[in-house]
Amino acid sequence: MSAGPRSAYRLPPPETAGSGLRVRLDLAYDGSSYAGWQLQPDRATVQGKLEETLARLTGEAPRVYASGRTDAGVHARGQVAHFDLVRAWRPDRLALALNACLPPDIRVFRARRVSAGFHARFSAKGKEYRYHIWNAPVLDPCLRFYRTHIPRPLDRAAMQQAASALEGCHDFAAFSANPNREVDGTVRTLQALRVRGRGPEVFIAARGDGFLYRMVRSLAGYLVRVGLGEVDPSTATEILESRTRTARVPTAPAKGLFLWRVFFRRIGHS
Amino acid sequence: MSAGPRSAYRLPPPETAGSGLRVRLDLAYDGSSYAGWQLQPDRATVQGKLEETLARLTGEAPRVYASGRTDAGVHARGQVAHFDLVRAWRPDRLALALNACLPPDIRVFRARRVSAGFHARFSAKGKEYRYHIWNAPVLDPCLRFYRTHIPRPLDRAAMQQAASALEGCHDFAAFSANPNREVDGTVRTLQALRVRGRGPEVFIAARGDGFLYRMVRSLAGYLVRVGLGEVDPSTATEILESRTRTARVPTAPAKGLFLWRVFFRRIGHS
Repeated sequence: MSAGPRSAYRLPPPETAGSGLRVRLDLAYDGSSYAGWQLQPDRATVQGKLEETLARLTGEAPRVYASGRTDAGVHARGQVAHFDLVRAWRPDRLALALNACLPPDIRVFRARRVSAGFHARFSAKGKEYRYHIWNAPVLDPCLRFYRTHIPRPLDRAAMQQAASALEGCHDFAAFSANPNREVDGTVRTLQALRVRGRGPEVFIAARGDGFLYRMVRSLAGYLVRVGLGEVDPSTATEILESRTRTARVPTAPAKGLFLWRVFFRRIGHS
Repeated sequence: MSAGPRSAYRLPPPETAGSGLRVRLDLAYDGSSYAGWQLQPDRATVQGKLEETLARLTGEAPRVYASGRTDAGVHARGQVAHFDLVRAWRPDRLALALNACLPPDIRVFRARRVSAGFHARFSAKGKEYRYHIWNAPVLDPCLRFYRTHIPRPLDRAAMQQAASALEGCHDFAAFSANPNREVDGTVRTLQALRVRGRGPEVFIAARGDGFLYRMVRSLAGYLVRVGLGEVDPSTATEILESRTRTARVPTAPAKGLFLWRVFFRRIGHS
């Protein structure tokens, strides 16, 4: 009933000499033990684990690029990444080999060959993040790493009212943790910002063409304050227009955040 | 947005000298880090953590009794326990104090005063366990401690067929890990054994008046073999009647099992 020892998996050698290969990975991870996606010296990162495992399996040293460089403690359910290999490995076998050798908190759903024009980050036309809240007096112990606990009842209708006012194309500087360092400016289109859930589960689904640094956690932090009645939902437009970060916009904890899905243009996709 | 430092909580002293107090706790835990419910020397157990924390908070040394003594790695969503205190502490404050001082993998939903006739184990008239399976090629990394991973598709209808044949009053010796050591014999009534779920989630809900040692994990192990087509569902009755443990009944891993709910008679309940 289990997968057997990890080290037992042997990746078959590439079938032809080939002319190189770009591989798209669809993956999920529990970000609790990682200092985020991006490679950092002397710290465990998801990119680091993937590069290290690919090197061990193939003898090549591919650089791995992701659609979204998630922060420390942030999870992913639908992360997309790509990398190049010199030899023509079979992508389906690579997925099996990666799952046999990666730690169990990183899982590859699928590996497939893509055209050289595909880029996990630059070909993405949008992303959906979900921010998960447990809204009941006592947090389910089995969800403690995956939900932000808000014991007091949230006014979900007020949260949705504020969220709806934030949808559309706006300057989101007031919802960036570092607006002065955004190289592409601070205007983004939020296609949808919805408050959903049932029972103790509440989640905020944010879909957009791009997100500023800690933007989803800032939106979640603000919406939680609205839900608790600490800030009026009518302040959404005023805060946007101020373009200034204030105490009304705290950054919600990393552990509630999931990179949920990445959207690509049809062309150049596979 | 967080509960603050654990050590900050101070339990108010009992309001009256009182004549003693029996307290019922409703609690949940993530069993991953524990050698089960029951106190063991030099090992972390749920009972041990509760007794240690209660002693620290009250200065008394209550023994804590549970409805079900879950095994190592088994979780609980609806465990019930009771204990006696000499002084008349306020149960609602005790619950808050316990949650402030217990590790986050043990959570108390409620503490309430019960009559001296209430016993978490002997007053229980039945229990429901749920065995959780993730039935898809790749296991969700955030559920890796709470689901048994079965990559190959399970025939859920065949599983339910075998499960239905196991419902009712039977000698379950063939589904006990140690039938010779069952002090109350091996006959039990399984009021319901149902296979449920959607998408990759499959769970087996077992409700009965009592369970033998590792009975739910044995039922789950057998039903998984049925679902994989390795054992025919028609074997259920024959295995029951054999009263003998065989290879057709493996013990499923602990991590998929949850003590879901405990049922009590109305009288003596509170």
